[in-house]
Amino acid sequence: MKDAVIKYLEEHRDQQLESLCTFLSIPSISTDQKYQQNVSEAAHFVKQYLEQIGFEQIELQDTVGHPVVYGEWLGAGEGAPTVLVYGHYDVQPADPLELWDSDPFKPTVKAGRLYARGASDDKGQTFMHLAVFEAFLKTEGKLPLNVKVCIEGEEEIGSEHLYELLEQKKEQYRADFAIISDSGMVANDQPTILYGLKGFTGLEFTVSGPDNDLHSGLYGGAVKNPLMALAHILSTMKDENEVVQVKHFYDQIEPLSDEERQLIADVPAENYVSSIGIPETVSELGYTAAEHTMGRPTLEVNGMFGGYQGEGTKTIIPSYATAKLTCRLVPGQNPVDIQNYLIDHINQHTPKGVRVSIKKEPLSAKAYKVDPNHPLIKQAAKSYQIGFNKEAVFVRMGGSIPVVEWLDSIFNIPIVLLGFGTPDDRLHSPNESFPLNNYDRGILTLVDFYRSVLS
Amino acid sequence: MKDAVIKYLEEHRDQQLESLCTFLSIPSISTDQKYQQNVSEAAHFVKQYLEQIGFEQIELQDTVGHPVVYGEWLGAGEGAPTVLVYGHYDVQPADPLELWDSDPFKPTVKAGRLYARGASDDKGQTFMHLAVFEAFLKTEGKLPLNVKVCIEGEEEIGSEHLYELLEQKKEQYRADFAIISDSGMVANDQPTILYGLKGFTGLEFTVSGPDNDLHSGLYGGAVKNPLMALAHILSTMKDENEVVQVKHFYDQIEPLSDEERQLIADVPAENYVSSIGIPETVSELGYTAAEHTMGRPTLEVNGMFGGYQGEGTKTIIPSYATAKLTCRLVPGQNPVDIQNYLIDHINQHTPKGVRVSIKKEPLSAKAYKVDPNHPLIKQAAKSYQIGFNKEAVFVRMGGSIPVVEWLDSIFNIPIVLLGFGTPDDRLHSPNESFPLNNYDRGILTLVDFYRSVLS
Repeated sequence: MKDAVIKYLEEHRDQQLESLCTFLSIPSISTDQKYQQNVSEAAHFVKQYLEQIGFEQIELQDTVGHPVVYGEWLGAGEGAPTVLVYGHYDVQPADPLELWDSDPFKPTVKAGRLYARGASDDKGQTFMHLAVFEAFLKTEGKLPLNVKVCIEGEEEIGSEHLYELLEQKKEQYRADFAIISDSGMVANDQPTILYGLKGFTGLEFTVSGPDNDLHSGLYGGAVKNPLMALAHILSTMKDENEVVQVKHFYDQIEPLSDEERQLIADVPAENYVSSIGIPETVSELGYTAAEHTMGRPTLEVNGMFGGYQGEGTKTIIPSYATAKLTCRLVPGQNPVDIQNYLIDHINQHTPKGVRVSIKKEPLSAKAYKVDPNHPLIKQAAKSYQIGFNKEAVFVRMGGSIPVVEWLDSIFNIPIVLLGFGTPDDRLHSPNESFPLNNYDRGILTLVDFYRSVLS
Repeated sequence: MKDAVIKYLEEHRDQQLESLCTFLSIPSISTDQKYQQNVSEAAHFVKQYLEQIGFEQIELQDTVGHPVVYGEWLGAGEGAPTVLVYGHYDVQPADPLELWDSDPFKPTVKAGRLYARGASDDKGQTFMHLAVFEAFLKTEGKLPLNVKVCIEGEEEIGSEHLYELLEQKKEQYRADFAIISDSGMVANDQPTILYGLKGFTGLEFTVSGPDNDLHSGLYGGAVKNPLMALAHILSTMKDENEVVQVKHFYDQIEPLSDEERQLIADVPAENYVSSIGIPETVSELGYTAAEHTMGRPTLEVNGMFGGYQGEGTKTIIPSYATAKLTCRLVPGQNPVDIQNYLIDHINQHTPKGVRVSIKKEPLSAKAYKVDPNHPLIKQAAKSYQIGFNKEAVFVRMGGSIPVVEWLDSIFNIPIVLLGFGTPDDRLHSPNESFPLNNYDRGILTLVDFYRSVLS
């Protein structure tokens, strides 16, 4: 006889996907003040859904920024473990809009994929947990374990206020372990257990020269060009072998062991050239692209601008130029220290004739690693195999999820990173999407995992 | 008894300024297709004004781009010289609009200055010649010499089609000398004869990597960042001593003689630090700021952009980055060769992992120099003294006016560069303006010059 929970999920698939699409249609872009109302709307969606499916003590917990949605179901009985489920309802900006084939906030299904900003990161994946809880509660009338949810609205901007909230409400959020679905598989159809994440820090700096843009004929030869000065500063930060040149950047880094290099080599490699269109990969001298993305720190320029950007020519020496930088860190690197090393470097390499001003990114995050042999991690791998009919690989990912480091430091609990995204999801880019067969198979994985955790 | 011409100008000052303001209110931005209609409107303004004041054979001469306005008055009699008066009715873009205190196309007078895009460059100065011709024709019924006007609409974008037109209509435009008011004085109230101009060439290049923006956590460490690559290429083009590092850039340059260095030293120096707000000047090793701006070539980045430019953070490796470059050249440098040297340099310094594509700027210009002792040049200095009650200085300017080189090469005639702009005019910047007392004194200068040329 078919599992009642699975049957419920099959029968209510369309309905649940419709709810997900409603969730996806809200432009909850946390980084941009213009969308503040929409971010709030998304928080309310989550709150209402939790109310509908039978959670309790649901509340929008205010922060100085966007609220965190809390809810619990604690009726699993004596000795049952408590899981903290984390997700986020905010999304990345959608620009450049003109590169989207469909409206980023009008969810569209095409060739088995659901297209919308946030479909993969993270609304689709967060919603899967809620769908599974709904199925258990509507059929068995209970969940297999105690559940607390923490669904926030600032992940894309560094989860600036979450640490403080978790600290303040430590007892409310306390659990035996946490689970997060906000990551991806290394390849389509390749279940992937994330056992490590990179840390994160960043800043924005502006080089300024003359008070106003200047006529380049009249002033060229007397004035340090701020764009040139910015280019110079940036060029000193990494050498041509992708080795970061910022003093002390690598000082305390946990080295990449031979054992880990083998684990990395076992992971099916993405063919970057064909998948993303680059002529060839580049990586830090002495490391392969996979080793660098997974186990070595990075420094990237995310945006850079100054002067005339319109059509044609404008013969000016621009007044100023700005660059936005972020670093992904590995165990051993302290994000606050790294940020300060970046600042020192920028100040020391600013040429004469211009001034520099620096804006730090708010709260950053240390890197995270868990033992791949932990029972919960091993159960996650087993459940993955049930859902996807394939053995899981274990990887450390180049991305960062700030909350992971904080859960680790506040609660010291295992964190199961069970993601269902794929390399083709185009996170942070135009035409983000999530494959519906991963939605379906992931839900099966979660049903098995939540059931099996007790044993 | 007061000069009738001067009297006419005084009595019709308001009326003529009103006409100038009508001219200025037309957003004739040549570089941007959006304003094509307005550019045409400005051409028609000039045509109509010439008709009103009594010129003949007036026509809008079509080019592939914007038309050139031609008109003549050839009734000065046997042995009278013919002057070709050049000006332009197109203007620079006005952005960034939010930095203007008044609408760039709603001319406003404040503290003795007329504020509008084009007030100084070049509508105000071009109009002054028309105002003077009007005065002569309405009072004496004739002009003191034969006059042909050539007022074009593409100066701000390199006068791309003018050379061809002048070549094709060589006989129509033939004259004994030319006069151009499209430059400025080295200081307020300091009459300045320009005896040299710099040449010009440029290009735009784009560095591209992945087909789309990428998640910097997932792909950082495998991909060459196009912004970083662009910064690197730019940083190789000039060293920290402002010496251009592009091979062959300086090969054929006419060196700056001691005599010229003395002429330059005699020119009252602008206090760049106080006038434009830079912390200090920088110039090519071995040259002062004044020597570099006047007599040495320059390479400037006019615009640079790629990746996320909005509020806050976006953790991407951008798909591409673009920079716009222009060079000001001195005698001895061939603009087409220089452009090719730039292209070679960019190609040779493009790192692996990215591709580069280059877009050349259309027609460029060689530098120009005339003998400061030519009788016409000396007369211009005298007339300046009449108008401004101060002796003129002789300078070579950092700016370029493409037509100067072409008039030189097609007709081999002296070109009198008699400008009335000032360093505070803010050419090519927000809040461009032109001082009304220079409008008035410049008109007196032109009346004297046109009268005296016959003698």
